[in-house]
Amino acid sequence: MATEQITLYGAKICPFTQRVEMALYEAKAGYSRFEVDLVNKPEWFARDVNPASKVPAIAYGGPQTSPDQPSPLSTKLTESLVLLEFVADLYPNSSIFPTDPILRAKSRFFIDAVTTRFLPPYMGPIAHAKSFEPFWDALDSIQRLLPEDKVFAISDEFTVADMAIAPFLGRMEVWMKNDIGAYPKGEGLKAAEYFFNGERFKRFVRYFDAIKARESYKHTIDMEYLRNAYAARFEPLRAKLQEAAAAANANATTPTGKTASS
Amino acid sequence: MATEQITLYGAKICPFTQRVEMALYEAKAGYSRFEVDLVNKPEWFARDVNPASKVPAIAYGGPQTSPDQPSPLSTKLTESLVLLEFVADLYPNSSIFPTDPILRAKSRFFIDAVTTRFLPPYMGPIAHAKSFEPFWDALDSIQRLLPEDKVFAISDEFTVADMAIAPFLGRMEVWMKNDIGAYPKGEGLKAAEYFFNGERFKRFVRYFDAIKARESYKHTIDMEYLRNAYAARFEPLRAKLQEAAAAANANATTPTGKTASS
Repeated sequence: MATEQITLYGAKICPFTQRVEMALYEAKAGYSRFEVDLVNKPEWFARDVNPASKVPAIAYGGPQTSPDQPSPLSTKLTESLVLLEFVADLYPNSSIFPTDPILRAKSRFFIDAVTTRFLPPYMGPIAHAKSFEPFWDALDSIQRLLPEDKVFAISDEFTVADMAIAPFLGRMEVWMKNDIGAYPKGEGLKAAEYFFNGERFKRFVRYFDAIKARESYKHTIDMEYLRNAYAARFEPLRAKLQEAAAAANANATTPTGKTASS
Repeated sequence: MATEQITLYGAKICPFTQRVEMALYEAKAGYSRFEVDLVNKPEWFARDVNPASKVPAIAYGGPQTSPDQPSPLSTKLTESLVLLEFVADLYPNSSIFPTDPILRAKSRFFIDAVTTRFLPPYMGPIAHAKSFEPFWDALDSIQRLLPEDKVFAISDEFTVADMAIAPFLGRMEVWMKNDIGAYPKGEGLKAAEYFFNGERFKRFVRYFDAIKARESYKHTIDMEYLRNAYAARFEPLRAKLQEAAAAANANATTPTGKTASS
């Protein structure tokens, strides 16, 4: 199928953007890319590309323009899972989506599990210093969907189902292995040991290793960039939570005449 | 495409089931149907069909067996939106899903809006006696996606996008027009007047009228059954909430010496 011009609006920090960029890479689609500064979005972005002001977004078709001057003649599409299927529909002969209806249904079931089971507790430990337990349980429920005898989630092919979860695993690796998060110092490294070297997630780690070997994954993730961005965001949060905990502790001990330092 | 046997496990009360049944009907698929008693599910259902014990579910392929004796050789598929796409994939020459990649993306964007914007506040008034406002706002956000110059959500064809919302509109009509819900008596009729006869939702009502004219809709909804089921479920709830409110009111007035009946 001859496709028209594709412009991807995204951000390196954003896992939803990486989903789509992996699909474009795997489908060997030619595309332009515009990095949206999420902290200081260009004023034309919401007006001319996505009224919801979110990335990723694709401008498809219309004349080839500079990405910062999107044409009103292109079709604007949003929502990363919609875009994954869109890329697959544009490139039906790529292997990013199976053609068999049963495997297609299994792919969408897996993606639904990522959305409804894996993502809700995903930010708990890193952003809110919540217990890791719901996060481990979510990873476990995804692991149970991984076939023992296949490389990837659906088959031996790397498909949109894998692309739906891969960016989140990459970001998890960054915050765990660098001990970055709202949780107390050391908890990230302990979690990394538990996930990457423990017994419980052996199948999952094998799956993640296969993902990390894909050029499309390596090409669309910048671990150093993520490490710095996460440190800038979550280290102040950890300090703030620790201060709040210390203050609460001091208050709690005041009535008995003890101080937090005694 | 030659398809294999299809058995749908569903429940008449369940809007998610109706989604799939409409798709099967529109695609002219031959299928067996088993009504699952949601209050008293057959013990084989979770074991042999859907471990999550939810409807709808489809058993696809394998030998033709009695639905209450599902074969281990059939593929079991679940999640209503996955099943909508599955039926569309099985019948690519039916018109239930557009073939153009842009229209497919728009269909999925509409379905995503139904899931993330329309459904969250949908049960608020009827099941929790919550304000209608978030519900009206959600309907409004869907209405803004409806093209002025097309009959249905995506085109003049009746597609999976429409099937994703239709069963919920039908159920809304039942509870509003029969004034059934946890909300105070009369609020349902007022809401029906506001939605069906007011200025705000003219485009939406025209859309709903087009849906209601489809044979696939009429064939898969039983308004009388729904009315009775909803009355049995929500009338006791209204009575309970009113009792609780009266008790709270009596308690609140006790300290001043007044009683609720004074």
